[in-house]
Amino acid sequence: MSVAARVLDVLGAFTDATPVLTLTEISRRTRLPLTTTHRLVGELAAWGALERAESGAYRVGLRLWEVGSLAPRGVGLRERAMPYLEDLHEVTRHNVVLAVLDGAEVVYVERLSAHDAVSIRSRAGSRMPATATGVGLALLAHADPELVDRVLAAPVRRFTPATVVDPAEIRRLLGEVRRTGVAISVQQIELVSQSVGAPVRDATGVVAALSIVVPAESNPHAYAPAVLAAARGISRALTGVNGALAR
Amino acid sequence: MSVAARVLDVLGAFTDATPVLTLTEISRRTRLPLTTTHRLVGELAAWGALERAESGAYRVGLRLWEVGSLAPRGVGLRERAMPYLEDLHEVTRHNVVLAVLDGAEVVYVERLSAHDAVSIRSRAGSRMPATATGVGLALLAHADPELVDRVLAAPVRRFTPATVVDPAEIRRLLGEVRRTGVAISVQQIELVSQSVGAPVRDATGVVAALSIVVPAESNPHAYAPAVLAAARGISRALTGVNGALAR
Repeated sequence: MSVAARVLDVLGAFTDATPVLTLTEISRRTRLPLTTTHRLVGELAAWGALERAESGAYRVGLRLWEVGSLAPRGVGLRERAMPYLEDLHEVTRHNVVLAVLDGAEVVYVERLSAHDAVSIRSRAGSRMPATATGVGLALLAHADPELVDRVLAAPVRRFTPATVVDPAEIRRLLGEVRRTGVAISVQQIELVSQSVGAPVRDATGVVAALSIVVPAESNPHAYAPAVLAAARGISRALTGVNGALAR
Repeated sequence: MSVAARVLDVLGAFTDATPVLTLTEISRRTRLPLTTTHRLVGELAAWGALERAESGAYRVGLRLWEVGSLAPRGVGLRERAMPYLEDLHEVTRHNVVLAVLDGAEVVYVERLSAHDAVSIRSRAGSRMPATATGVGLALLAHADPELVDRVLAAPVRRFTPATVVDPAEIRRLLGEVRRTGVAISVQQIELVSQSVGAPVRDATGVVAALSIVVPAESNPHAYAPAVLAAARGISRALTGVNGALAR
């Protein structure tokens, strides 16, 4: 394994579930000798990619966050989308999320939560399966058919009794998203909530999706116009076009 | 130079001003031979730390953003602070920013902008000098005196005719921040705006600052109570304490 790959392995050892790791834990996760781990972690910490927690363990450093913030599908997309997400959040007082597709998963780029909004699992930087989520269905509906085949060939993860796991039924949902422009996922992630999503486009096609996460007892269709308006606003900001975009 | 340092050098070549770079540009900036650059960039792209733009040039990839989002002073801090920033933004309709201190500079962790708010230079992930900004004055006022000496020993950058560059005058401003709890920076960055900032504390001390950026013609003192309330709310969220915090 090359040294570059080792460096990246050390960085990849830090995850949502394990944001703070000791040298021994990093060594075990990367299967690198402790001495090699010690040297690499020292170099990463000196640069600011890692920093030391009070416990003496390591966590991701501010400098890596700064460089990461240059990713166009991360903070770059988020910056353009933010005013529209804010508007939607303010009008509805519910959670609003923005996500991009990465293989069979969605990566959340933004989440706006009110103090009193329904519980929600995602946070900026976290991942979820593309199926079952409103943003995921909106993205898959416009994804390469080969990717959809690959996603549906693998077992689909079940979160609640309402999670749709039958590939034929998921395909039907994707068709409905293409027909209506809106992706509605009812209680598929948590029984207390449902999400209403829509795709976001730039000049190249669908690049992201947003959704609003609302209580299970509300009428999801009532949120569709606001969600579509926000998605169009962001699409317009990304393309720099003032006229209407085709759905 | 070690290979790890070279990998970090390649990542560090990407900045706010140069978010997209060709192989040749990366090679020139890092002073690495083109063949070495080619190999390292290939490994970084395969892992997802870099990705290829339509032009064939490279930019920071989604995976690096994901790992970076685990930085506690980046997205971690932002997530805890967000509801309070939102409240302040919603009540005032002005730009709200959250920043941390890194040496003589502040790094912006969050910025909430309204469509119609006054212009603002910062974005999440960008840097500014600690002096002259509301968040910077709030942070410097509570920083290690040796750091303050070091910052004021270097020439202070001037942005507008109103930028305070005299070290003695800056020290007076810092004393006022400690006395009043609020940092007011009038037209120091742009003549159209001023900022009202306050420090955010966790159990270890001041860890961040927030500020509101308002038009130059408004009365900054009118915003102080709302800014202080938001700063206390975030401090409480960071410490998990329900009672009042000492200022």
